[in-house]
Amino acid sequence: MSRLVARWEKIFASVLSFADVNLRGVGQVVFQNNPLSGALFLAALGWGAFSANVPHVAIGGLSALIAATATASSLHADETSVRGGLYGYNGLLTGLALTYFLGPGTLAWAYAVLGGVVSAIAMLGPVNADKPWRVPAHTYPFLVVTWVFLLAAQGFSGFSDAYSTSVAPPIDPLASDPLRIADFLDGVFNSLSQIFFKGNVLSALLLLAGLAVNSLAAAGFAMGGAVLAVTVAHLFGIESELITSGLQGFSPVLTAVALGTVFYQPSFRVVLFAALGTLAAVVTQSALDAALAPIPLPPLSAPFDLVAWIFFVSRSCLDRQPRSARQ
Amino acid sequence: MSRLVARWEKIFASVLSFADVNLRGVGQVVFQNNPLSGALFLAALGWGAFSANVPHVAIGGLSALIAATATASSLHADETSVRGGLYGYNGLLTGLALTYFLGPGTLAWAYAVLGGVVSAIAMLGPVNADKPWRVPAHTYPFLVVTWVFLLAAQGFSGFSDAYSTSVAPPIDPLASDPLRIADFLDGVFNSLSQIFFKGNVLSALLLLAGLAVNSLAAAGFAMGGAVLAVTVAHLFGIESELITSGLQGFSPVLTAVALGTVFYQPSFRVVLFAALGTLAAVVTQSALDAALAPIPLPPLSAPFDLVAWIFFVSRSCLDRQPRSARQ
Amino acid sequence: MSRLVARWEKIFASVLSFADVNLRGVGQVVFQNNPLSGALFLAALGWGAFSANVPHVAIGGLSALIAATATASSLHADETSVRGGLYGYNGLLTGLALTYFLGPGTLAWAYAVLGGVVSAIAMLGPVNADKPWRVPAHTYPFLVVTWVFLLAAQGFSGFSDAYSTSVAPPIDPLASDPLRIADFLDGVFNSLSQIFFKGNVLSALLLLAGLAVNSLAAAGFAMGGAVLAVTVAHLFGIESELITSGLQGFSPVLTAVALGTVFYQPSFRVVLFAALGTLAAVVTQSALDAALAPIPLPPLSAPFDLVAWIFFVSRSCLDRQPRSARQ
Repeated sequence: MSRLVARWEKIFASVLSFADVNLRGVGQVVFQNNPLSGALFLAALGWGAFSANVPHVAIGGLSALIAATATASSLHADETSVRGGLYGYNGLLTGLALTYFLGPGTLAWAYAVLGGVVSAIAMLGPVNADKPWRVPAHTYPFLVVTWVFLLAAQGFSGFSDAYSTSVAPPIDPLASDPLRIADFLDGVFNSLSQIFFKGNVLSALLLLAGLAVNSLAAAGFAMGGAVLAVTVAHLFGIESELITSGLQGFSPVLTAVALGTVFYQPSFRVVLFAALGTLAAVVTQSALDAALAPIPLPPLSAPFDLVAWIFFVSRSCLDRQPRSARQ
Repeated sequence: MSRLVARWEKIFASVLSFADVNLRGVGQVVFQNNPLSGALFLAALGWGAFSANVPHVAIGGLSALIAATATASSLHADETSVRGGLYGYNGLLTGLALTYFLGPGTLAWAYAVLGGVVSAIAMLGPVNADKPWRVPAHTYPFLVVTWVFLLAAQGFSGFSDAYSTSVAPPIDPLASDPLRIADFLDGVFNSLSQIFFKGNVLSALLLLAGLAVNSLAAAGFAMGGAVLAVTVAHLFGIESELITSGLQGFSPVLTAVALGTVFYQPSFRVVLFAALGTLAAVVTQSALDAALAPIPLPPLSAPFDLVAWIFFVSRSCLDRQPRSARQ
Repeated sequence: MSRLVARWEKIFASVLSFADVNLRGVGQVVFQNNPLSGALFLAALGWGAFSANVPHVAIGGLSALIAATATASSLHADETSVRGGLYGYNGLLTGLALTYFLGPGTLAWAYAVLGGVVSAIAMLGPVNADKPWRVPAHTYPFLVVTWVFLLAAQGFSGFSDAYSTSVAPPIDPLASDPLRIADFLDGVFNSLSQIFFKGNVLSALLLLAGLAVNSLAAAGFAMGGAVLAVTVAHLFGIESELITSGLQGFSPVLTAVALGTVFYQPSFRVVLFAALGTLAAVVTQSALDAALAPIPLPPLSAPFDLVAWIFFVSRSCLDRQPRSARQ
């Protein structure tokens, strides 16, 4: 009897441990190595998918997350990195993006899982390379895998229709007015919640809560980054629907959190540095919207990656002992 | 008299040595540092060019191969690498591609030779860099030089006509049916022989023979990769003419051989790893077909390079002592 | 009284030192760490902007240069590099390009200054990385920042009109004839002066003078590179207006100077090596003209960067103790 209990306890511990790793993977999308943050982000993501009536996106994302984590484990990847969720977040984002753009269905789901597996393999090099170079991979595996898989789908008879209609008009035309406070706030909250592919006020609050439970600074930089991004985007005269839907602001938000919380000692100079990076991310988002329009491909989080790489290599000038955003 | 004999012997030895280096260069296109493999590949390539009535392609390729090897020698490149044919294979591929797409004529031939010279210079860095990073250059010099030279030719009054007609319709429309076993086999064999720019059953058999004389495993992975690539491509619903002509499958075949034979100890996990890479190469080939269509540029072996880089950096997780595919 | 004098002397010394750093920054555009070279280049640039009636381009360039230098100083960048002007030249080029393509006006000026600041941050990594890799950054920060900022401007309501008209017809149609010696010489001199964004014979002479005061070899390679580039471009049959305006030749000139003067001991082999690089830059310029036309983006100095990177990594084979072109 006691052996049966011991066996059950062991199974139960394994399940808990696996859930913990995957929740940390969700948390790492916004740099939080914390299962509670991951659970709150998961609620944000679930509510976003449910309220937009695209539950298959949440299912695709979670399946790819689990597949990515399992792939890294089975390839004997560095155990600390696996447990910290470092192999999972790219899988989650890849699964969300592929099912979002390719629609529901078994083929799209299997394709998303395959994408998650490849994203984990693509992460093996950067995680090791992180050590000597100290430049984190950020969402590079997500970007490369999702772009390649979306482009490829144009040549697959099963996908081509779904894809062209979902990417071509990337935003729902919203009637928005930058001078109306409601539209401005919508832009700010959607810039937060679009990190998980659907703009939504409740999801934004859950996201902020998820950040705050692990790091009040991260929540502050996220909120500040969203306000700055929306303000600057309106000043530049970017199309206001793009701003209000949050599609212009989610990469600048990620940039603000990454640059603002990567240093051990926050200071006024760090805030300035993060603000400059957020500004550069707004410009880069607009640049990639223009560059990728003819292909057509969504920029995804590429503006964040580009700015974060350029700014990260210079962080040693601000701080003697910088660290990776994802611990 | 004996001095004359000695002199002749020396010249003869030099000629033999030069032929050996260049044959190894041909062999390195499919990772075989072996002059006999090179000779059989050369027969495959020669027969492909002859039967397609494009002998100038074979001549351009060989001229660029010799020019590349001579350039590396005269720049005092690492001697072991030169002798192993590491500076030659990119020159050969560059010469084949440039004369294939720009047609016959002295100008195209000279342009191909210049391309071969630049490809050897471009290879000097990666061959040295290979040591600390352990990520081989694969066909990166071939890709960069050929893309740049083909794009440039659009602005040269001597080439522009030839180019636009040869790239625009990249395939001969073949009436093919995936369910017919003959078309399926054509796809498999053409995926092998397209490595040397012309699909052809006899060339495919010569290529397999060239692999088998140096490594039975390489021949097995090539054949297995071709079958897997053609099967998966049909399942994805890729245009069947692209598959049957071999244009969809040659990069996956290169990927299968590179990932399958780079490990010292073959195992079931290595086979799985190579199969996953082959699958990713099929997807990447379709993606680059879509991405490069508007420019227009042929994807060449870029799908192989992209997948091989992403997968190679993770090989240390499967094998403690990995090696470069090209010894 | 003597304290007042001492204070004035200190201020005067600071002003002189700041002017020295910025003049060296101008000099570094063509690899000369010398304030006199910088002053002569500045005269070339000023005359070019004045005679073409675009004074705002010179003002934008200088403002961005100063902003870039100040940014690097305030971020505690390596002091020797700051004093050598290594953080300034990308800022200058970024400011020139952004005001040239986006026109006069306060918004464009502020945008150019922001670009200069980001270019200095982007340079922090490469300057440090230069040491172990020994591959200089060249104008990579200028390229990335200018391309991103120009692309982004397409989505900004304040810029979009100015941009589309200035990039779309990149050259003034000149009636030129390669066989007329006057047109040939125009091509040669404009290939020199286009480095500072405006073709012009007097500016070309000032540029050569600026090179000669620091390095006669640099002046020789610049002149030789321009003659070779114009000759080869005509032989390839490139549109003659592109050649005569200097737009085809300025990247080959930079390549000739960089490859020709980076070695301690000049020799016939170094001349051959530089000539081969110049030839490759002519081809690459034509390739990028074709590749970037549909976006549309100007190639800027990308052909120089691409060729210089590929050729620099191989310089260790020619010279045991290579150095960076920018000391």
